[in-house]
Amino acid sequence: MKIIIDGMGGDNAPAEIVKGTVEALPVIDGEIVLVGDEKVLTEELRKYSGKYPEERVSIRHASEVIFNEEAPVKAIRTKKDSSMVVGISMVKKGEGDLFISAGSSGALMAGGLFILGRIQGIDRPAIASVYPILGANHPSLLVDAGANAECKPQTLLEFGVMGSIYMEKVIGLSAPRVGLVNLGAEETKGSTLTKAAYEMLHKSRVNFIGNVEARDVPKGICDVIVCDGFVGNVILKLTEGLAWNILKLLKRKFTGGAVVKMGAALLSGKMRELKNEFDYSEYGGAPILGVKGPIIKMHGSSSANGVKNTILKAIPYAENRVVQIIQNSVEELEEISISE
Amino acid sequence: MKIIIDGMGGDNAPAEIVKGTVEALPVIDGEIVLVGDEKVLTEELRKYSGKYPEERVSIRHASEVIFNEEAPVKAIRTKKDSSMVVGISMVKKGEGDLFISAGSSGALMAGGLFILGRIQGIDRPAIASVYPILGANHPSLLVDAGANAECKPQTLLEFGVMGSIYMEKVIGLSAPRVGLVNLGAEETKGSTLTKAAYEMLHKSRVNFIGNVEARDVPKGICDVIVCDGFVGNVILKLTEGLAWNILKLLKRKFTGGAVVKMGAALLSGKMRELKNEFDYSEYGGAPILGVKGPIIKMHGSSSANGVKNTILKAIPYAENRVVQIIQNSVEELEEISISE
Repeated sequence: MKIIIDGMGGDNAPAEIVKGTVEALPVIDGEIVLVGDEKVLTEELRKYSGKYPEERVSIRHASEVIFNEEAPVKAIRTKKDSSMVVGISMVKKGEGDLFISAGSSGALMAGGLFILGRIQGIDRPAIASVYPILGANHPSLLVDAGANAECKPQTLLEFGVMGSIYMEKVIGLSAPRVGLVNLGAEETKGSTLTKAAYEMLHKSRVNFIGNVEARDVPKGICDVIVCDGFVGNVILKLTEGLAWNILKLLKRKFTGGAVVKMGAALLSGKMRELKNEFDYSEYGGAPILGVKGPIIKMHGSSSANGVKNTILKAIPYAENRVVQIIQNSVEELEEISISE
Repeated sequence: MKIIIDGMGGDNAPAEIVKGTVEALPVIDGEIVLVGDEKVLTEELRKYSGKYPEERVSIRHASEVIFNEEAPVKAIRTKKDSSMVVGISMVKKGEGDLFISAGSSGALMAGGLFILGRIQGIDRPAIASVYPILGANHPSLLVDAGANAECKPQTLLEFGVMGSIYMEKVIGLSAPRVGLVNLGAEETKGSTLTKAAYEMLHKSRVNFIGNVEARDVPKGICDVIVCDGFVGNVILKLTEGLAWNILKLLKRKFTGGAVVKMGAALLSGKMRELKNEFDYSEYGGAPILGVKGPIIKMHGSSSANGVKNTILKAIPYAENRVVQIIQNSVEELEEISISE
């Protein structure tokens, strides 16, 4: 297993990326290639000299960096020597098994499309994001998390099938429960889009549990949360914002008066636990499903621990050949959409 | 002021509806008419005999009830003697100033449309829901909360204008901040729908602060949250589900071990405070904006306290002639959409 990591992407690059890499190495078997400015990355690695298996890390020089503010397609087309373009190209050439980056989601999606290409028969690749379920053993997967603001019913069917394969092969669930986000649980509810997608998902081989209401999503009602990218973006960001807000308010509430302060002190460990349960980076990155190769987007502000977790979760994604399995499922998808 | 209340709608009718009515009377000036089964309502009122200003309550008999499971349009058309149809008809005939019901949202919307009619120039009436902002002085208003799953840009413009008028006249904000829920804060982001709606809202007279991300909605970034009904439904229900889930998990976390238990005991008052801040019924009901008369939907499971709060908040809605002001704003709306 050879894992290629964008050493320059994200808010905390290269320091946290390199630190996470160094921390991941002792617990994995494979090799890691860091892509980016050779001098900068060498210096970062030097900080950990003697403390990690140096023979399993190498650096691939890339002179440019793609930033979040840049127009994705243009950036991928013009910055040929960026860490992102170089990294994705290595996967394309078989010089590595998967690519991980904390850089721009849009550029990563564009890079996947232009360099690796779409899986034939898949209409629109998706960014699938892990969605933390408080108190559960595993997170759910939200497809699409924001790449496709406008979708066709066929696209939602693809999201369900790709997400189901991911949860089965990477998280190890058998028959993951696939739910369609809708206005109500009844079959007849919803928009033109969701009504048609309901029919298609119902005909597919996934374990489709039907419509799910947004109210039940945080309770873990389904393992694969299917929705268009606009709704997915709202779900992901609202969850983040609301959790942050509740924790902040609790903290403020817990500082008034001696009794309350004492109570808060006694509970501080539990509060920290809750905060960690919301920390997306604990759960690994977001795969870009539907392109011809494994690419994983890490949270832009990933800490070393987030980087390490993403690397660990990325291995079964490549090893269990999720991309090939998606490719093989395309025939089923086409049959369903033709019969509509 | 004569307030007409559906005595039979909602999960806790008639008991909590009547109790809330009785509790509201001492703090308001107006009269209340309870609509529904005369015998049942009389008996409920009898429980509070001598404890409320009886001369300001009357009962209007209606022999039927519309239930949540019924198809809204059919229910309104066939159950002519239902508490909902009778109540809305009283507003239409000028026998009351506004109508409040905890019954089916769909039927209430259909009743508004068929009995009172759409305000001319308003494409689609909306259900506007209060959205609690933790730690803030007032809630925001979410338009649309689920009535219109599919919208045109013009519809979103209407939502912004109607919501702005409501927040100004009922909550008393000057120049309420109107935000459009979108994928990112940048002007160029979004779907075909939101991009076009952005342009229209920008040209309108409302205090349009631009696109808002779902992440910032719970922080109170805007007073009027504009989105289509599908997204609005997701925002409302996800907030409810997630808050419930976080509080449940905290409760569970706070029961392990003596130290934690003691901490939790010291904080129980604060935890209750937080729970109350999420209680929608504290903030009053959801106005149906865009029909020719004030109709307010209460939460289906409103307690007496929720009923009372809804009555109190409903008074400025009717008194400040919000419906007429919306009617007067239609010309502006038409100018914007023609110039597009």
